[in-house]
Amino acid sequence: MNNSPQNPSDSEETESLLEGIQSPEDIRNLSEERLADLASEIRSKLIEVTSINGGHLGPNLGVVELTIALHLVFDTPKDKFVFDTSHQGYVHKLLTGRNGSKFDKIRKSDGLSGFLSRSESPHDSFGAGHAGTALSAALGMAAARDQLGTDEHVVALCGDAAFTCGITMEALNNVASATKRLVIVLNDNEWSIAKNVGAMSKYLNELITNPIYNRLHHDVGTLLQKVPGGEQLLKIGKNAEKGWKSIMVPSYIFEQYGVRYFGPIDGHDLPLLRRHLEFAKEADEPVILHVVTKKGKGYKPAIDRPESFHGTSPFEIGSGKSKSKGAPSSPNYQDVFGRALVRFAKADKKVVGITGAMPSGTGLIHLSNELPKQFYDVGIAEEHAVLFAGGLATRGIRPVVGIYSTFLQRAFDQLIHDICLQNLPVLFCMDRSGLSPNDGATHHGLFDIAYTRCIPNAVAMQPKDEDELVDMMSAGLSLDGPAFIRYPRGAGPGTPVKPSPAPMEIGKAEILRPGDDLTIWALGPMVQEALELSDRLHVEDGLDVGVVNARFTKPIDTELLLSQAEGNRLIVTMEDGVVTGGFGSAVLEALSNAEVATPVHRIGWPDSFVEHGSDVAVLRASAGLSPDDMLAGIRKKLKTPSVAI
Amino acid sequence: MNNSPQNPSDSEETESLLEGIQSPEDIRNLSEERLADLASEIRSKLIEVTSINGGHLGPNLGVVELTIALHLVFDTPKDKFVFDTSHQGYVHKLLTGRNGSKFDKIRKSDGLSGFLSRSESPHDSFGAGHAGTALSAALGMAAARDQLGTDEHVVALCGDAAFTCGITMEALNNVASATKRLVIVLNDNEWSIAKNVGAMSKYLNELITNPIYNRLHHDVGTLLQKVPGGEQLLKIGKNAEKGWKSIMVPSYIFEQYGVRYFGPIDGHDLPLLRRHLEFAKEADEPVILHVVTKKGKGYKPAIDRPESFHGTSPFEIGSGKSKSKGAPSSPNYQDVFGRALVRFAKADKKVVGITGAMPSGTGLIHLSNELPKQFYDVGIAEEHAVLFAGGLATRGIRPVVGIYSTFLQRAFDQLIHDICLQNLPVLFCMDRSGLSPNDGATHHGLFDIAYTRCIPNAVAMQPKDEDELVDMMSAGLSLDGPAFIRYPRGAGPGTPVKPSPAPMEIGKAEILRPGDDLTIWALGPMVQEALELSDRLHVEDGLDVGVVNARFTKPIDTELLLSQAEGNRLIVTMEDGVVTGGFGSAVLEALSNAEVATPVHRIGWPDSFVEHGSDVAVLRASAGLSPDDMLAGIRKKLKTPSVAI
Repeated sequence: MNNSPQNPSDSEETESLLEGIQSPEDIRNLSEERLADLASEIRSKLIEVTSINGGHLGPNLGVVELTIALHLVFDTPKDKFVFDTSHQGYVHKLLTGRNGSKFDKIRKSDGLSGFLSRSESPHDSFGAGHAGTALSAALGMAAARDQLGTDEHVVALCGDAAFTCGITMEALNNVASATKRLVIVLNDNEWSIAKNVGAMSKYLNELITNPIYNRLHHDVGTLLQKVPGGEQLLKIGKNAEKGWKSIMVPSYIFEQYGVRYFGPIDGHDLPLLRRHLEFAKEADEPVILHVVTKKGKGYKPAIDRPESFHGTSPFEIGSGKSKSKGAPSSPNYQDVFGRALVRFAKADKKVVGITGAMPSGTGLIHLSNELPKQFYDVGIAEEHAVLFAGGLATRGIRPVVGIYSTFLQRAFDQLIHDICLQNLPVLFCMDRSGLSPNDGATHHGLFDIAYTRCIPNAVAMQPKDEDELVDMMSAGLSLDGPAFIRYPRGAGPGTPVKPSPAPMEIGKAEILRPGDDLTIWALGPMVQEALELSDRLHVEDGLDVGVVNARFTKPIDTELLLSQAEGNRLIVTMEDGVVTGGFGSAVLEALSNAEVATPVHRIGWPDSFVEHGSDVAVLRASAGLSPDDMLAGIRKKLKTPSVAI
Repeated sequence: MNNSPQNPSDSEETESLLEGIQSPEDIRNLSEERLADLASEIRSKLIEVTSINGGHLGPNLGVVELTIALHLVFDTPKDKFVFDTSHQGYVHKLLTGRNGSKFDKIRKSDGLSGFLSRSESPHDSFGAGHAGTALSAALGMAAARDQLGTDEHVVALCGDAAFTCGITMEALNNVASATKRLVIVLNDNEWSIAKNVGAMSKYLNELITNPIYNRLHHDVGTLLQKVPGGEQLLKIGKNAEKGWKSIMVPSYIFEQYGVRYFGPIDGHDLPLLRRHLEFAKEADEPVILHVVTKKGKGYKPAIDRPESFHGTSPFEIGSGKSKSKGAPSSPNYQDVFGRALVRFAKADKKVVGITGAMPSGTGLIHLSNELPKQFYDVGIAEEHAVLFAGGLATRGIRPVVGIYSTFLQRAFDQLIHDICLQNLPVLFCMDRSGLSPNDGATHHGLFDIAYTRCIPNAVAMQPKDEDELVDMMSAGLSLDGPAFIRYPRGAGPGTPVKPSPAPMEIGKAEILRPGDDLTIWALGPMVQEALELSDRLHVEDGLDVGVVNARFTKPIDTELLLSQAEGNRLIVTMEDGVVTGGFGSAVLEALSNAEVATPVHRIGWPDSFVEHGSDVAVLRASAGLSPDDMLAGIRKKLKTPSVAI
């Protein structure tokens, strides 16, 4: 931790260096010592703010020097940085005019996004939130520059885990043919979200740990800056290059892709980083700089527990302990899922779990700990995860893919073309369906109802509570075809899970409360909201309002729906997803097919992207989905007579 | 062409060897000479049948010996072959009990599928139609075997182009950690659908053309079979291996992924193939055999014009010329698109075209020929194609992605997370929307209306004819956000394209015929069908039936719709896509939002996968979508009174 002095050397003044940074220009005249102070100050800021708001602390602590070096050498917004996933963009934000009060509210309502965002700053050339996209997007920008004849630099910042993702490899295959000028910074902290997996990870590790190789590259990198004309050394003849390659075998993969490799480089040595980036800036061919960083650098708890501090909830700075809110709340859905899966997998050795680099976030960590042979982590590789499950399913294995709703979008073609077309029994357990409030637009799982509903053979459901989740898992595991279960981020209502799951008939809803005037068909966490609306409509309006736990978005319970629609004045649908093509549309379709004209009032997310915010209630209110708003909508619908034909 | 004797050596008998093959067992006792005869007979069969039906002739001619060798060495259905894309599975079909009359009708109604299909034969362990899936699926099967403790072999057959696809690279990253036993056959004919692109292609070519390396590997491969215990040579110590690698640099990529590389191997030398496969079968680690084949082997026109004969329409065997049907029909949509794009790109240098290995199929070949600097072929890499377009769009370039509807499913997350969320102006021109009748379920573009409709910021449209396609391209190219245009495979109605496109207001439909009783809202090729239904309903039922060219599936023309719905007894929607969540649902949603109770009759594809068939009319009829069926449906709906509340 050579670069984290806690006390600035000129102790006469404790003024903030960081506060004076209005744009990247402001750091370019600072001395090396002052830059080290700045790094230290940034680290303190990162720790302080994420201890309150939560956020991606570990990755950002790891890229402090790297980000400073990038802004010393390149000139945004003219030059373009593309951060992969962009959860490691906090330092970049602090250096590009976003070090004020909005940073203190990062990931909260009225605060900065936790990811880069084109609408937030001209310094953010491309937003992200899902991994593996930076190299492709950067290559597009480089190709655009070449088309337009301009001279800006394009830098892609990719974590090592991005190279487990197929998109990055597709892009890598196209780098050499698409442009002659691109800087790729491989920020290697040996982690994706969890510890990195697979052959590529081993390969990168080999690059780092081979001492001869290490020394050699280090010397070359230094040499190139010290010797006048040293850059010319790169322009070695074909034969010499072949000789060089036989020594440099480990860099062969990147070289083979037409990208010149330099590394490994100490990612916390600012002068060294600066020299390498200056060199890469002038290169007349695509260059990859392999930078080795320490996740959590400068904060011991984050180094000791890198997975916890990859994305952390609020914590106490001294101890690094999570700030829990008094009494333990009910368990998160992910843990209910994970523990139930362990039970199913113990009872049936054919049950296996698959994650794409998210063992903790999905709750598959429980399976990984207890039955590691029945657990697969394939890396950030959602398409492969789904296809791999398909292959397993053809042989009688019962694969369960634990995945976030938005990440499953990555495998939409595999869902159609491989799983559902072949009617393979794979169970998809989609966490983070609905809002992921602090993460924002890239992470809200609002599309899965619509995108699974159009696929033939899909069975899709959502439980009202934790116990029903386990019943649905049991139902899904005994189906002869594919099944999807969606559930929200965080804790459910706290319903205890029965010792043995109850049978769950496919496509059958559950009447929670009968009603003569109208019936609300609700999904998941909307069920509780529906019960409350029903109470208020009874008390305040004297209406008899039924509530149905819809359970299935495909197939829906048409029989029950029709029987109620024929007696009711209105059917209300409530879903935690986009209304366009969602569950409410399924209800409209069923009624239209049956030629039942009962009006339907559909409550769900409107047709626009939802930004980040402090919590679900705030975001719902901002979209007209507060309890009062929903109530007003229902009342309006009830009072307006339908236009008859 | 050493293995294509046109006359069997024992000329006393001209009986068919192939006809006697009921299962792979039947070939295992044949002499080498008879196997060569069989190969020759298979080639004749392939040429004969595809000359009548069309089909993937070139790829299948290339794998005749390879497929025979696979069935000599392995034992399906116990052992599992997974063919990537599986368009090259004709020979496999012929050897696995499918060499009868159904083969003669391959790709036609009542004939075999042109791809592998689990429902067609137990020898088909995994179906496909999209590229890049085989390695993942095979790895799943191998992992299942390891879980279950059984002993079958799993063989993945991947073309060289599969390695431009990210899914294959994701799978490759996981091979070594998932299993110790997997045979990968890299069938390298230096082509994807078009000539292969990118760095991986160059790399494979280097493996093939390096003479020292070639010789060395050849000798090793042969040696291993000739020397008793030769297989033990593989178990070399760590140090020896490192020395070996420094010589064997070119194989380094595969070795680095933990897969033992052997090759290149002449893919038309049956005894050599057999020896290598026998060796691979016994290997106790994942093995890749790099087999070099000649696309079109044994049929000169297919060798001379490999892209034409990759997937060919019916042709004359003697000349190889396409069997055209007399007078030239109107041009295919793909060519209308391709030519129009050239005009737009000439007028504005910022307009560029992007394809994923489909320059001919999408019509981008015209751009490639005329303005190659404004054309990008990224290989079979749909996710990268879309992201690359996104990167270009951020810099003011106007990218047009020409892609098949079903292949765009590959980039669903990129559409949401990168393009639409950032509202980037990329124009997607989706060919093969609707049916691709001979190709079948994997290629029918029936989901794009539903999957684009749920994405905020998307504008999606479908032209009624060629001229309107160009108007829509013009509209899409002047939008500030993303736009999607869908159009069917093959020829349109033949409407000439105006010299200059007309303005097209976003979200506005076109009244083609007013009607007082009911109005049909139709999309694309359904417009013509709607006009004919309107005529018949007028003549046969005395009804005044309006027809609207709906044009937009998002946003729909709500204003016009409501004005008509309030006057009409019924609104009919007609779309060439799944009805679940499709355009008809958009109409239901709009009417429900406006509290208009006019009934809607939605005509489109039901909620099941559609198989292949001889033509569109046959497939439509089999799904209850013939003109008479559609008419009967409308009449039924008109006669049934709605249930009032």
